[in-house]
Amino acid sequence: MQIAVVGLGLIGGSVALAAAERAGAAVSGWDADPEALEAARSRGAVQHAAASLAEAVAGAEVVFVAVPVGALPLTVRAALDACGDGCVVTDVGSVKRTIVAATCDQRFVGGHPLAGAETAGIAHARADLFDGATWYLTPTAITSGILFERLHRLLKELGALPVAIEPDVHDALLAVVSHLPHVLANVLAAEAAGALGGGERLPATGPSFRDATRVAGAPSAIWTDIYLSNRDALIARLDAVVARLADVRAALAAGDGDWIEAWNDAAAGDRRRLLEAGGPGGELHELRVSVPNRPGVIAELALSLGRAGVNITDLALHPAPDMSEGVVALWVAAAQSARARQLIDELGFPVARA
Amino acid sequence: MQIAVVGLGLIGGSVALAAAERAGAAVSGWDADPEALEAARSRGAVQHAAASLAEAVAGAEVVFVAVPVGALPLTVRAALDACGDGCVVTDVGSVKRTIVAATCDQRFVGGHPLAGAETAGIAHARADLFDGATWYLTPTAITSGILFERLHRLLKELGALPVAIEPDVHDALLAVVSHLPHVLANVLAAEAAGALGGGERLPATGPSFRDATRVAGAPSAIWTDIYLSNRDALIARLDAVVARLADVRAALAAGDGDWIEAWNDAAAGDRRRLLEAGGPGGELHELRVSVPNRPGVIAELALSLGRAGVNITDLALHPAPDMSEGVVALWVAAAQSARARQLIDELGFPVARA
Repeated sequence: MQIAVVGLGLIGGSVALAAAERAGAAVSGWDADPEALEAARSRGAVQHAAASLAEAVAGAEVVFVAVPVGALPLTVRAALDACGDGCVVTDVGSVKRTIVAATCDQRFVGGHPLAGAETAGIAHARADLFDGATWYLTPTAITSGILFERLHRLLKELGALPVAIEPDVHDALLAVVSHLPHVLANVLAAEAAGALGGGERLPATGPSFRDATRVAGAPSAIWTDIYLSNRDALIARLDAVVARLADVRAALAAGDGDWIEAWNDAAAGDRRRLLEAGGPGGELHELRVSVPNRPGVIAELALSLGRAGVNITDLALHPAPDMSEGVVALWVAAAQSARARQLIDELGFPVARA
Repeated sequence: MQIAVVGLGLIGGSVALAAAERAGAAVSGWDADPEALEAARSRGAVQHAAASLAEAVAGAEVVFVAVPVGALPLTVRAALDACGDGCVVTDVGSVKRTIVAATCDQRFVGGHPLAGAETAGIAHARADLFDGATWYLTPTAITSGILFERLHRLLKELGALPVAIEPDVHDALLAVVSHLPHVLANVLAAEAAGALGGGERLPATGPSFRDATRVAGAPSAIWTDIYLSNRDALIARLDAVVARLADVRAALAAGDGDWIEAWNDAAAGDRRRLLEAGGPGGELHELRVSVPNRPGVIAELALSLGRAGVNITDLALHPAPDMSEGVVALWVAAAQSARARQLIDELGFPVARA
């Protein structure tokens, strides 16, 4: 398989390494920064360091655009203009509404891997970055099912767990599980430095501070765009947090130990439920679904299951010879197969257990 | 050395294990919960499981009181009443003003190790919990220098870095580097659960959320007391955080990318400076200080250096035969020895490099 990676930072570089090592792909790469491109080549992440974006994507079957969120619309457009009709183009941006709305093309599928590190740049890229990581995909009603399936399968080979989601649901989710934690980490670092910085030297801090501020000051070249692109969703979460802090303050001022205890216990339960939400493992069931061969069908299926928390562990599309219809084979956890079947029934597609 | 540990949870159990393994101490223990006491005995953390607090501390040279903050005043008092004149009693509570103000005894030194874990209880205790961890001590003007030195030396043997600090400075510091991060983690967990809980299942979250909420819902049996005991300092920090969030909200609403970028970059610098504040390593210098043998002198020295960020790596007190005066040997990092000498000069004590 021939793939292209445009933008060779931590994520792009890791995609390139994983695609080469795990999917046996021939990887062509391009980066606006010649040093990053050369570093990717010398690390073996890209076999071909292209002289331009157009050269990188020529002949590719899958193109990953891994540039900052603000640069996505123009770069994705350029990739679509330069690649072939049978190529799927995806991105890895942390905000999805803008790029999906700006890109009306059946070959485009928005994407976002929930993976990262305290470090940025090609130097820290690694082939196992996506192992077990949720990789959100935002297919729409015009997305080609064949191209979606190809991307889905490749992401599985990279070690990730692809999950379909609507762009607006994605952005609201990321506002609370990623962008808000980043804002709080920044505020905490600033507050601590402000409160403690008066002395001759800062005092020692403990592990809770280190963890709480791990993502403080994430690279501005990436994060300024992210904050601004998702600012409506983020502002809603900031307002909610301020209201919650006011409740805590009132309970502290009143010395209300019962309230504090109940609040603290609830947080323990909330965190446990959130972190357990990785989905069931174990035995897989295959469901074979007959679908008409029109754009949007695969997106409809994947989004419906994703919304209900049913992970599609694997997905294969078998078009009929005349391309008029097809069979989608879906693998889901045994514990979720009855629910998956019910959801597919509700969509009106015939389903048969293999 | 004979030591006693009262309260055998994560911290008390780890003190017991470290004292036995690393200082060759005979450890006597007591816990109000017979199961915790038996677990500590069967793990080899305590050699003697006492039938009462008084039995545990009888004959001890050092007593650690490792019970929740709310139970400290009465438990520390009981330990002081039951132990001998030559015994030093310390605690491990996360808030220091209350217990220090309540305990007027030359044998008491408030303490607080900056160590912990996501887990609580004797089952998770381990001898290396304090390796490299700052362990705050709050000696006062009435603290016995001989007893302070004994405790300081033992903490070094446990692997910790003892640092002297005033109780009010400690509590203001902990409000920002520990209690505030715990509140923010709780609020973030609650906000995420509230915002995402409407669907059939919670979606997957990424690593930044996991780190930001690691301390959410810390054990209420310990933390309700901590929040309430330090509520004035914590409320001040909550108010400051709300003001900072209002600034972020205003910049987002205005789409002010320059402000967001500068704010984000500043947070990166703040976090780096705070986490680098571990103190210099490398070569040590010994400073020999002649001091009158009266209570408070060692506290004065240790607090003065601690305030200036000079770590006392080791400390030994050599009283004159008639106990009228003594020589304190202090080991400090070579890079800090000139500063240490200057501070000691300012206190009026003669100092000689060894």
